[in-house]
Order: sequence, then structure tokens, then C-alpha cells
Amino acid sequence: MVIANARAAFSPEGPFQTTTIERRNLEPHDVLIEIKYAGICHSDIHTVRGDWGPVNYPLVPGHEIAGIVSQVGSGVKKYAIGDRVGVGCMVDSCGECHNCHQGEEQYCLNGMTGTYGAIDKYGQHTQGGYSTHIVVTEDFVVRIPDALDLDVAAPLLCAGITTYSPLRHWGAAPGKQVAVVGFGGLGHMAVKIAHAMGAEVTVLSQSLKKREDGLQLGADHYYATNDPETFKALAGSFDLIVNTVSAKIDINAYLSLLALDGTLVNVGAPSEPLDVNVFSLLGHRRSFAGSMIGGIRETQEMLDFCAEHGIAPEIETIAADRIDEAWERVLASDVRYRFVIDIGTMGNA
Amino acid sequence: MVIANARAAFSPEGPFQTTTIERRNLEPHDVLIEIKYAGICHSDIHTVRGDWGPVNYPLVPGHEIAGIVSQVGSGVKKYAIGDRVGVGCMVDSCGECHNCHQGEEQYCLNGMTGTYGAIDKYGQHTQGGYSTHIVVTEDFVVRIPDALDLDVAAPLLCAGITTYSPLRHWGAAPGKQVAVVGFGGLGHMAVKIAHAMGAEVTVLSQSLKKREDGLQLGADHYYATNDPETFKALAGSFDLIVNTVSAKIDINAYLSLLALDGTLVNVGAPSEPLDVNVFSLLGHRRSFAGSMIGGIRETQEMLDFCAEHGIAPEIETIAADRIDEAWERVLASDVRYRFVIDIGTMGNA
Repeated sequence: MVIANARAAFSPEGPFQTTTIERRNLEPHDVLIEIKYAGICHSDIHTVRGDWGPVNYPLVPGHEIAGIVSQVGSGVKKYAIGDRVGVGCMVDSCGECHNCHQGEEQYCLNGMTGTYGAIDKYGQHTQGGYSTHIVVTEDFVVRIPDALDLDVAAPLLCAGITTYSPLRHWGAAPGKQVAVVGFGGLGHMAVKIAHAMGAEVTVLSQSLKKREDGLQLGADHYYATNDPETFKALAGSFDLIVNTVSAKIDINAYLSLLALDGTLVNVGAPSEPLDVNVFSLLGHRRSFAGSMIGGIRETQEMLDFCAEHGIAPEIETIAADRIDEAWERVLASDVRYRFVIDIGTMGNA
Repeated sequence: MVIANARAAFSPEGPFQTTTIERRNLEPHDVLIEIKYAGICHSDIHTVRGDWGPVNYPLVPGHEIAGIVSQVGSGVKKYAIGDRVGVGCMVDSCGECHNCHQGEEQYCLNGMTGTYGAIDKYGQHTQGGYSTHIVVTEDFVVRIPDALDLDVAAPLLCAGITTYSPLRHWGAAPGKQVAVVGFGGLGHMAVKIAHAMGAEVTVLSQSLKKREDGLQLGADHYYATNDPETFKALAGSFDLIVNTVSAKIDINAYLSLLALDGTLVNVGAPSEPLDVNVFSLLGHRRSFAGSMIGGIRETQEMLDFCAEHGIAPEIETIAADRIDEAWERVLASDVRYRFVIDIGTMGNA
């Protein structure tokens, strides 16, 4: 058994405390990873604060994990000690249902096992990447290409795949008009990826505050949604809108921006329902869809795509004792564009 | 100019009154049609009663029109006197926008011209099929195959195409699980068409009252939605759900019946918004979409498909002086499954 150093939340409001957690002895197909970097995702905050259901404290969040393989089980075929690897939002699934067979483990019909806050097949509460080590079955580990540094690779495991998957699924490509709603951790990745896929990319952000960044990172156009003229100017314009905002928005206003057969896909999950006016959908055979991270095969494809196209998130690296402060800044939208914890600052257990 | 006999609503609550209306002199591409049958669509009632916006009375409804060409303009190429033809929900569009070029005139970016209750390019209020004659530009006239009788052909022009188009667009085919919500005028056509396309078809109706009809007309399964067990038994089952119900329903319960990448498409338009829980969509990358009738080319394809597969609506033919009574029965869901007015009972103007 490995004792890992970690930072855990012991209550909804924190603060984070130093603790140790046990990682299981390696099963034949398990990989022990020495974590180097862990991204901070807004989902970490939602989960710890109980927005998405009851929480078993202490909880170690973190599902954007990049590190080095430090030990492998007797049957591991895909990885060897020293390999650069990543782990995202899930660490297991049934492997036997229709959706798993399709390589869409995130939609496992028996429920995938979340990287933290879930109960795994051993009956243990899973604990995430704000820690020095993690043990994961090799099928849920992905390889980080040499062209990607580990610090910037970490956020790709959630923010990257969450935006890559719908862009790929709904066909972002040359000749396609793609809009990205929200320009934060997910939004800025969506812009970079959609741009690399060849689409014409428009950012729809509350204000023009980050406009310069947006255009620099790959957007062709940048509009403020607090200006009603935006919705008139862009009516019926987009083939695909990726909505990265988790708050309740006027969804019909955004649906009106879709062209014939266009799709608005939510990757964020507001806790309140959205009031959809069906006439908004009938108008141009529009669709309102949802997409949740991506499968393991597609996550590997995304990492390879990012390496090939030189895509990486904009990050601000912090030490482990600054997690609370970073969370406050995430809640205040004061981050350009993703916090990454340098796990090396956590000390050894 | 042709003076047509007609039945018009002079107020939201009726009753229908006998009147005459003027049909324009034939422009070079116009076709004069002697109407033989006109279907009664729930939309007629919504429109006349002002549910969908202000109404210019007197209004002659009717957009399920079957008849015989009795005169053609000097430039008409597609039709000759004596041809069996139909007219559906629209009689014109700009013909120049992207969507018209795609053959999706129903989504014309400049607004298609509705068969009744619209203002056409001549500045005239359009009047529909509860009348003895209509003049329509040949591009918005479709040919009724010989294998289809005119009385049963009429409802295909709205109920038929409204269900055929989404079934085709979202790929109803062998190996696909298709559910139809509501078993009325649209629903029973959706069942027949989806069955003919080779899909496995399930009806989701409020009760089991029409179960025998459903199974006879092509459904493989028939469930009552007033039984909560239905939603448990069918969770995650369908590739496509066609919702023909215009009332507000618990949309999340129906979305939960979709399998991976499944789509629920509304062809009805409830006047109230529907509260969509985004988690319902995220779960299995589901989509909630809308579809409105179909283009002219697809309407012809649908008629040919129905002729080839021996598909026709179940109708109850009525005389023109029974429209008010028929409307009351439509509102009471007391029709199996579509009323068709025998325009021959209307007398000549």
C-alpha cells in the first residue's frame, strides 16, 4: 500500500488541510502514478460544496492529473515505469455495456467510476489528484505525448477533452461556424481546439474584457453578450455553439443564433432547469444537446491532436498551500485560464 | 379571377360560416386547383383561436389539400389540367436564401408563406383549403401518385410530411428503436412511416385505450405514459423519439428514455416553454430537437414513399357543414385518426 500526501476538504467550505490517503496495492492491471501536476476544475468546487449531491468528507478533489508511472502491476502491458501519463475524470467503468463497447466509457450504463467522490469496485471512496500518488487500472490511463509539458497537459484531461469531444462529434471543421459561450478554462480550450480543427470561431463572452486574449488564442470574432445587438447581428449564424457556462442563461436567445440544423451543446450543467421554447428549436431544425467529457480512446486522440497542433492551455501554476485562494479566484472568474497545482510542493508523505 | 366557395372563421370561437373568397388570376407559373379534400389539422384550431398570434378574420384554414389541376398559367411546366396534386403548409418562399437552396423552404430565411393566415408576395392574406379552389405557384404543388386516393392523400400534406421528415432526417431504419409520443393524427402516421422504414416502433400514449389500433397499424410495442413503470422499463431504450404532443409534458422523463446519442424531436409546439434539466442531456449525449413539416422535394418523396409502401392515414370523411363538430372532437381527442372534409359538399360559388 502506498501512503500519499494530499490536500483534502473536510467540509463544504474548507479550508484545505494536509492529510495522507492510502492508495491500494497494485492489482495486476494497475499503474501507480507519481503525480506531478493537477489542474483545478470548477467541478471540484461544485462537488466539494455539495452542489451535485451529498459528499463523503474528507474529500481529495482533482481530475486533471499528469505524472510519471512509478510502478506497474504484474499484468500491465501498456505502460512502463517512467512513462509520462495522465488521468482524467474517471478511473473505471463496467467495460461490458453497449456504451463501454463503443469506447464511450463516460456514458457507462452501469455508471463510470469518478476519479474522486465515487465508490470503486473495491468498495473504496475514490480520492483525486490533489495528492502525490494515485493507483489506476491501465485502461483508464492515457499517454502524454513528449511534445506536451506535464503542467499544461494536466488541464487537457478535463477541460481539453470536454471541449474536444463535442467539437469532434458535431463536426467542427473548415467551412463551419463555431461559437463558444464563456471564455474561461473550458472556453479558451474550445477556442484553441476549434481553431485548430479549421472552423471559424466566435467567442460569446459577457463582456469584451478578454477580447484581446480571445483573438490571440484563435478566435476570429469576439462579441459581448451583455450587448443586445450581439443577438441581432448573429441571428441564425452558427452550425455549432459550445456552451461552457454552468449558470442558467437565456437559452432561447442562444438557440436563435443557430443556423439550419445547428446544435447548441452544453458541456456545463446548471443546477436549475433551462426554459426551452420549442419554437426556438422548430425554427431551423435546431438541436439542444449535452456532452460529458469523452471516452478514453478519444482522450488519447485529443492529447495527440494537441501535441500535433501545439495546443496547450494557458495556466497559472500554484503551490499546494494556495488551493483555497485559487478556488476563490476561480469563483470570481479571476484566472487566465486554468490553475495547476505543482504537486512537488506538497512534500512526501 | 376565380371566386371560390369556402368555410371561414369570423372569430376565435366560430362557428364556421359559408363565404366566398377571391383567388388571384393565374400568373405564368400558377396552377389553379379544384380542391377535392382538405384535412383538418390541430394547427388550424390553434391558428384560428389566436394561440399562435393575432389573426386576420375572416380566415379560411386548411393546409392538407388534395385536388385536380383545372387551369395552368402560360409558363407552367410541371403540371397539366387533370393532374392529381396536393398543397401542404406553405405556398411560397423566397427561393434565394441558403435554406431554400437546400430544398428546405419551410426554414426560408426570409419567411415562407403559409397556406393560410399569412401575407403573400402580392400583399394578399392567404386563405387555405376549406374552399373549392386555390391558386398556387407550381413549385409549391406536389404530385399525388395514382396509388393514393385523394381523400387519404390530403392529410399526408401536413401530418405525413411532419412525421416523415424527422424520421428520415434522424435515420429511422432497421435496427433502430423509434418511439412515438402521442397516438393521434400525427402519431399514427409516424407509426406507419417508421414501421415502413424498418424501425422497431414503440407508441407512448397516455393510456392503453388505442393499443389495439397501434399494434395493428405498425407498432411493435405500446406503453401507457400514465403508468410510472413505463419510464423505468424503457429507460435508455430509444435512438429516436418523435413527440407529436403539443401540450407541455415532463420532457426530462422522456429524455431519460433515450439511448446514447439519441434524439427527442418535437414536431408539436407547446405554447409554454419546457423545463429541460441539462443533466438529462449530458447523461448520454442526448439531443432535444425540433422539426417543422418538410421541404417540397421531401414532401414529394414522402408521397412517393407512401404510395410505394401502401401507407395512408386512417380518416373519417365529413361534409363541410360539420367542421365545427369535427373541431370539437379533435379537441376532445375523439378522432381515429384524421378528419377530412369532402369539399364536394361545399357547393359551387
